[in-house]
Amino acid sequence: MKRIAVLTSGGDAPGMNAAVRAVVERSLHHGIEVVGAYYGFKGLYEGDFRPLDVATCSHALRRGGTFLYSARFPEFKEPEIQEKAIEQMKAHGIDALVVVGGDGSFTGALKLTQKGFPAIGIPGTIDNDIAGTEYTIGFDTAVNVALDAIDKITDTASSHNRTFIVEVMGRHAGDMASWIGVAAGADAIVIPEEAYDLKAIAETIAANRRAGKDHSLIVLAEGVMTAAQFRKEYEAVSGDDVRDVTLSHIQRGGNPTVRDRVFASLMGAKAVDLLLEGQAGIFLGLKNEQLATFDIVETLTKEKHQVRRDLYELNQGLSAK
Amino acid sequence: MKRIAVLTSGGDAPGMNAAVRAVVERSLHHGIEVVGAYYGFKGLYEGDFRPLDVATCSHALRRGGTFLYSARFPEFKEPEIQEKAIEQMKAHGIDALVVVGGDGSFTGALKLTQKGFPAIGIPGTIDNDIAGTEYTIGFDTAVNVALDAIDKITDTASSHNRTFIVEVMGRHAGDMASWIGVAAGADAIVIPEEAYDLKAIAETIAANRRAGKDHSLIVLAEGVMTAAQFRKEYEAVSGDDVRDVTLSHIQRGGNPTVRDRVFASLMGAKAVDLLLEGQAGIFLGLKNEQLATFDIVETLTKEKHQVRRDLYELNQGLSAK
Amino acid sequence: MKRIAVLTSGGDAPGMNAAVRAVVERSLHHGIEVVGAYYGFKGLYEGDFRPLDVATCSHALRRGGTFLYSARFPEFKEPEIQEKAIEQMKAHGIDALVVVGGDGSFTGALKLTQKGFPAIGIPGTIDNDIAGTEYTIGFDTAVNVALDAIDKITDTASSHNRTFIVEVMGRHAGDMASWIGVAAGADAIVIPEEAYDLKAIAETIAANRRAGKDHSLIVLAEGVMTAAQFRKEYEAVSGDDVRDVTLSHIQRGGNPTVRDRVFASLMGAKAVDLLLEGQAGIFLGLKNEQLATFDIVETLTKEKHQVRRDLYELNQGLSAK
Amino acid sequence: MKRIAVLTSGGDAPGMNAAVRAVVERSLHHGIEVVGAYYGFKGLYEGDFRPLDVATCSHALRRGGTFLYSARFPEFKEPEIQEKAIEQMKAHGIDALVVVGGDGSFTGALKLTQKGFPAIGIPGTIDNDIAGTEYTIGFDTAVNVALDAIDKITDTASSHNRTFIVEVMGRHAGDMASWIGVAAGADAIVIPEEAYDLKAIAETIAANRRAGKDHSLIVLAEGVMTAAQFRKEYEAVSGDDVRDVTLSHIQRGGNPTVRDRVFASLMGAKAVDLLLEGQAGIFLGLKNEQLATFDIVETLTKEKHQVRRDLYELNQGLSAK
Repeated sequence: MKRIAVLTSGGDAPGMNAAVRAVVERSLHHGIEVVGAYYGFKGLYEGDFRPLDVATCSHALRRGGTFLYSARFPEFKEPEIQEKAIEQMKAHGIDALVVVGGDGSFTGALKLTQKGFPAIGIPGTIDNDIAGTEYTIGFDTAVNVALDAIDKITDTASSHNRTFIVEVMGRHAGDMASWIGVAAGADAIVIPEEAYDLKAIAETIAANRRAGKDHSLIVLAEGVMTAAQFRKEYEAVSGDDVRDVTLSHIQRGGNPTVRDRVFASLMGAKAVDLLLEGQAGIFLGLKNEQLATFDIVETLTKEKHQVRRDLYELNQGLSAK
Repeated sequence: MKRIAVLTSGGDAPGMNAAVRAVVERSLHHGIEVVGAYYGFKGLYEGDFRPLDVATCSHALRRGGTFLYSARFPEFKEPEIQEKAIEQMKAHGIDALVVVGGDGSFTGALKLTQKGFPAIGIPGTIDNDIAGTEYTIGFDTAVNVALDAIDKITDTASSHNRTFIVEVMGRHAGDMASWIGVAAGADAIVIPEEAYDLKAIAETIAANRRAGKDHSLIVLAEGVMTAAQFRKEYEAVSGDDVRDVTLSHIQRGGNPTVRDRVFASLMGAKAVDLLLEGQAGIFLGLKNEQLATFDIVETLTKEKHQVRRDLYELNQGLSAK
Repeated sequence: MKRIAVLTSGGDAPGMNAAVRAVVERSLHHGIEVVGAYYGFKGLYEGDFRPLDVATCSHALRRGGTFLYSARFPEFKEPEIQEKAIEQMKAHGIDALVVVGGDGSFTGALKLTQKGFPAIGIPGTIDNDIAGTEYTIGFDTAVNVALDAIDKITDTASSHNRTFIVEVMGRHAGDMASWIGVAAGADAIVIPEEAYDLKAIAETIAANRRAGKDHSLIVLAEGVMTAAQFRKEYEAVSGDDVRDVTLSHIQRGGNPTVRDRVFASLMGAKAVDLLLEGQAGIFLGLKNEQLATFDIVETLTKEKHQVRRDLYELNQGLSAK
Repeated sequence: MKRIAVLTSGGDAPGMNAAVRAVVERSLHHGIEVVGAYYGFKGLYEGDFRPLDVATCSHALRRGGTFLYSARFPEFKEPEIQEKAIEQMKAHGIDALVVVGGDGSFTGALKLTQKGFPAIGIPGTIDNDIAGTEYTIGFDTAVNVALDAIDKITDTASSHNRTFIVEVMGRHAGDMASWIGVAAGADAIVIPEEAYDLKAIAETIAANRRAGKDHSLIVLAEGVMTAAQFRKEYEAVSGDDVRDVTLSHIQRGGNPTVRDRVFASLMGAKAVDLLLEGQAGIFLGLKNEQLATFDIVETLTKEKHQVRRDLYELNQGLSAK
């Protein structure tokens, strides 16, 4: 193996750059060259390969987003596009590929592997919604950025004794809302995986106020509905005057946390080692807090991502009564 | 003078606690007692006075929001309510009042003064929209919090080569948008004080992209319209695909910056000194970066808050062509 | 069980307040009263118990340090002092105790349990140096605060192409240095668990500079030696001009991260549940990223804390050659 | 005028990149080319000029440090070295120079101007120690970074009821210590411009403790002595057990604040405009919070930087007695 390509795909996530940097530095350590395929799978198809060096990577490590850029490219589903991408890589002397992205991106990696070009996936998405792995790169940063924003909102909520509904990201998964909600001391957490009871929420909030809390907070996963919709529903039942906030795109950026940089680095380096060992069609992740590999076909077709129920239950058991 | 009351009113602003702490510590330095009127003018009316001590204040200094709480109380416009408030203060042995809030709150302070009860205002609002003074407590923290959020959004905008419209606070004033826009390197700043030209904005953005920028940013003051409305207008003219974000309540909280704590402290201490000198019916502020006093009647009736035009013009002159 | 006491002991750690808050809210959920023993074991001995309420706790959740205070109290090793503490608790109607602190504090909890008073430990220390558990409360915040400081130092190091040695905490363990070092992209990590080779470090740094890095970084665990000492050693071997920085006490404070608040909350609630089930003489922790319990005697006498070798090895394999 | 060079010199300061970016964008706006002279005056001498583009600058705007690098180059005092630098600039078609740095760097700019090559200075130093101007780029970020660190230290100081002495930067000036000290609610501020009285400090701290403060803080300017030295002096007089912390290099980095980016941008753009008008031998700064120009010779020889006495006096008047 002489030259590896690396790309980032899907929504950007803090720590993607740390993964890319580890791919680069680990490859150099093995004496292998690395090029970045810019703009994700589109770059593969168009042959937009650029050499990656230590200087650029050592700065990128610290930054959110992806310096390799990302782009929508639904055309990659078509076999002829995939074949063209393989041709491009071969023409540029590239022997293997590392894909940093979500499960959609892993399917792209799988298709290439099935066509004979070895590719390995690294989970990069703030949503933590990939089957198999407990953790995806960017999740830790995103929940901390959201928590910091909610702490600021709490200053205002307390000052005016108000109730806020804060909508956080997570796509169809309640992971972000669960972690953020517990950390923020939310009166209620509303996630797609669990039914919610507006009356029970209103009662909890009232009880916590009687117990002395000077503000109230509901953390809502975007997978349930929008904050504005939920506010209407909740106001109708509770009679309270409520504010809603959607954290939106600020959750996606920011310098990555220790955890995101460390696990991104472990995965980036491991991906190179595995490709050298001749492995492909797999993705990396965490199991029991240790690095693990997952078969893309098996995992994406047979397993479902599970939210941590213990966090949701914990929050239910922390309210006043 | 034996006992002073202090209250916070209107929207909470980071640094209000620093002002209150300075009122308390300066009064103690003079051997005067201080009580907090909780929930703003409502607390005056209801006699909700509580002693304030150094321990509480020394922690509050570092925090956003207001630990004295704030509440809507439009009833304070009525003379009999004002008289009741004065009675309450006299009954509690209170000789003078410091009001931390916006220009609406200063009118309350003025009414009390006109009825014979000395009161002084301190400008506490993130919007920097008060006539006379260059600066209001909370503005510096709010623009920095907003900038930090926009820096994070820029990670995403760069990663996907996108254009974002970010709506910031400021009520009817363009101060927040102007400072934030220049600091963030916005392609365009849209404020209530200046007409905007969608076509010119689209051309600037296109020129900056040609010059190599990998993302675009429009900072919009809430006083103009909502980000969603502006996006529609802009997309219609430019044909671009644009994202809009409203920073909303996160701009209001957070630990106050050095500047907000320092000027809040200067003003809090000065308010006590001025009351001791027998002054009232005035508010404090900054002029040429130095502490200054303003007559409430004169200033609020004859002057208008001015946005710094040099920032807006600077931004116009920094774009590629 | 009618009344539980909770205390914090040893060095303060961000998230201790979240653990206390969870003890309080979980107890209230079960209809049990909670008091705080202020100033750690000293408060037990002196009977400094104060009721804890939801209002105070809901604010403390967000803050670093410990609002229950901590104090040195080596006298607690003496049996008669322990007996006096038990008397004090009984006199105040207290049936059980939760101790948040390091392994020294767990020994205190064990002594009380052995004398018939049920106590459970929760690991609160930034050093992550307790046997059995993978994680201690405060570690995640501390490494992120340190990383943020190093990111700032890197701005300067890059600007002047300098080499910095940064000393981080961790007592006798290399956990903090390992996580921080990988996250910061250090050229070398020096920890007590691994021998270091000054010449090899100098060669790695030279190689990384040749590969284009514009600055160099060595992360040093305080358990090895001071940064000033290490600088002298390193300069003697390498001939480089190096700066040393000791992060010192800033690593210990700050608003706790999501991870620290979430696991602190899980542990605080679980400690109450376990006391209700009649358990004692144990401490809580994480094993494979899930809540687990550990026998204090067994764990502290037979096990040793293990640093994650994979992080250290990863860093060795990421340098240029 | 066809081509301008810009350099950064002296210690790096957050906001230097914003100044450079404004020089670049303003020049492009006027149709002038810009090159960066890398590594300060050394780059002038060696002819290390590199073109600067919008893409690089738009990212650099947000970052601390200087992407043009800085280097020590005392040789620039020699006339023949200055002449060589002018030759290099002429050979590269450069007509004028913008120097971002401290007063030492302004002397370099002056020498070039006196030799017939027009140069203008922009004050970039965290120390705020330049005569004439009220403000230097980087000061606002540095004091906020230091304040954030002290807020974290205060978590620990409170938890253990400790007294901390924190040494901050500022070279021979007490500006940083004055602003930080007031903002942090220090019990005492010790700066080179004012004599200190250890006994009075000890009495203030004791009085504040009696008034209920749970921790104590002395903010010390590095221009007085080191924190370790001051601790010894203070402990000898007070008998207290005290911790000392030196914030050191973390104060120098970090993303620049709004204020630093805005004034850096105003100055960078104005420098270009002034060079176009034929001005040279001057530097930019703030006077009464507005952009102003200062003659380098006149200002550096006849004026002295003044610390704001009102902040120091304020702090004296906020303590308990």
